[in-house]
Amino acid sequence: MLNEFELIRRLSGRLPAPPPEVVVPIGDDCAVLRLGDELWTAAADMLVEGRHFRGWASPEDVGYKAVAVNVSDVAAMGGVPRFILASGGASDSETTLRCMDGVMEACEEFGVYPLGGDTTGAATLTVDVAILGQLERVPVLRSGARPGDLLAVTGELGASAAGLLVLEGGGVGSERLVKKHLRPEPRVEAGLLAARLGAQAMIDLSDGLASDVRRVCEMSGVGCRIDLSLLPIAGDTRKYLRSAGRDPETVAATGGEDYEILIAAPEEVVEALKARSETPITVVGEVTETDVVFVRAGDIVENLSGWDHFAGS
Amino acid sequence: MLNEFELIRRLSGRLPAPPPEVVVPIGDDCAVLRLGDELWTAAADMLVEGRHFRGWASPEDVGYKAVAVNVSDVAAMGGVPRFILASGGASDSETTLRCMDGVMEACEEFGVYPLGGDTTGAATLTVDVAILGQLERVPVLRSGARPGDLLAVTGELGASAAGLLVLEGGGVGSERLVKKHLRPEPRVEAGLLAARLGAQAMIDLSDGLASDVRRVCEMSGVGCRIDLSLLPIAGDTRKYLRSAGRDPETVAATGGEDYEILIAAPEEVVEALKARSETPITVVGEVTETDVVFVRAGDIVENLSGWDHFAGS
Repeated sequence: MLNEFELIRRLSGRLPAPPPEVVVPIGDDCAVLRLGDELWTAAADMLVEGRHFRGWASPEDVGYKAVAVNVSDVAAMGGVPRFILASGGASDSETTLRCMDGVMEACEEFGVYPLGGDTTGAATLTVDVAILGQLERVPVLRSGARPGDLLAVTGELGASAAGLLVLEGGGVGSERLVKKHLRPEPRVEAGLLAARLGAQAMIDLSDGLASDVRRVCEMSGVGCRIDLSLLPIAGDTRKYLRSAGRDPETVAATGGEDYEILIAAPEEVVEALKARSETPITVVGEVTETDVVFVRAGDIVENLSGWDHFAGS
Repeated sequence: MLNEFELIRRLSGRLPAPPPEVVVPIGDDCAVLRLGDELWTAAADMLVEGRHFRGWASPEDVGYKAVAVNVSDVAAMGGVPRFILASGGASDSETTLRCMDGVMEACEEFGVYPLGGDTTGAATLTVDVAILGQLERVPVLRSGARPGDLLAVTGELGASAAGLLVLEGGGVGSERLVKKHLRPEPRVEAGLLAARLGAQAMIDLSDGLASDVRRVCEMSGVGCRIDLSLLPIAGDTRKYLRSAGRDPETVAATGGEDYEILIAAPEEVVEALKARSETPITVVGEVTETDVVFVRAGDIVENLSGWDHFAGS
């Protein structure tokens, strides 16, 4: 299936010269505009039943998550989420309204103000959110990583993927893991703090660390070495994944939908961030000159890539 | 099916106090933000197969129209369309990409710059566009009509509805009418000029004059008298509708999707607009103290309301 990068390639070929307001065009977590004397980020993400969720997600969960994943894109630029437009539809009005209730709940949770949107009938539950975020300084892009930077992640990895496995398996398992999947917690405070402290590059972990770190490396023209044994995996995540016959480190690196932030920054910045962030910060590797390498117990791990949850569906 | 007004009611009940940037909240053609020293409009519209179009629309048409209808919302505020985010999906990648090609074609046509968006798989072709427009002065709202203002419309009415009838009837009929339905021409120049000249209220005609003028009257706390015999209906529209056994004036008042602008303004403003606008401007009635009244040949026409193309589908 088409991904964001194919889209960007297709659109970029037809893009006219950007207007003077465009500081960052399509291709990062958000585009960035200078409006008057202010910097604003813009992004959109769409969730569709059967592609991003199934019947195990309530309409409220879906609306909430559509806002949360957009907030995560703003967080990964070092911005503060401010305004959204939300469009959605389902096969009946009640489902559409319940989805919009989830949108509103997320707006309250993340301090985002809804400017409008659209509702319609649709064969399957679909919601698209466009977000405007505000920057207090130049954005942290995917392209700024430099050899010698440390690579750190906020929070924890693999819990959302474990929660998805619980849901797909019929919902028997940890409520905490399920909630991590259905109601992600975007890292606005940590992203803002990392930007203030001097992070060089950031990306939000939507497709999984193994895929997303490649994007940072490609756009920065660098390589990296990630040590899977360093990945922050919670005890309940580890326990559930083992019981399900899955390797916790592999799932944590490839499962996706963590909505944590991957940060490339000099060691002193990472240390300052660790000291001041309310969200745990864990060093998982470092930026190198070339080649994206994953190791575990000193051995190189091959063929680690993103995991397409619903491939073919 | 749920409409925009039910959504606004549902959301408004949960809206927190607007941030200081919000000049106009949800409920007009666009919301308006003051960002730095600039005024910006924000809106979104979603098109879904089976609700807004059927197989007679190419994916390119759908992408193009999704941008055009959003541009029309900006035009109705007196703004200039500037930036979009476009999200879309279909059951195969090629359809999605063709839809995005239509989005890009419309961006070129309307001078709008695409900041990004999202693509995904979806059961049926779906596209959502969010738009940012720029205002050079305070926006023209739906709520500013005053008794004594004239009511005028840009361009022509009923051609899009006639084109839809052609398409639904198998496509035998005027190519011009079909194109009016598939590729609307939002009235940016006329909207901007009307705002500069002092229009009191504007709305874009998406649901049909009979419905949309009621919204202006409700939000302005006024009434109106519209003379159906004054509606600007082109010769080919009239001819086709008669041949299809439809009353041209009724279709022009209720068919919808005209994407013309309804303008309430004092007579001298309408005269100045007529003299200077490249788009034809036609007076169709006047604003009164109370009651929304439609007349034809001196007789009151009852039960004139919007036309839900795909009601029940």
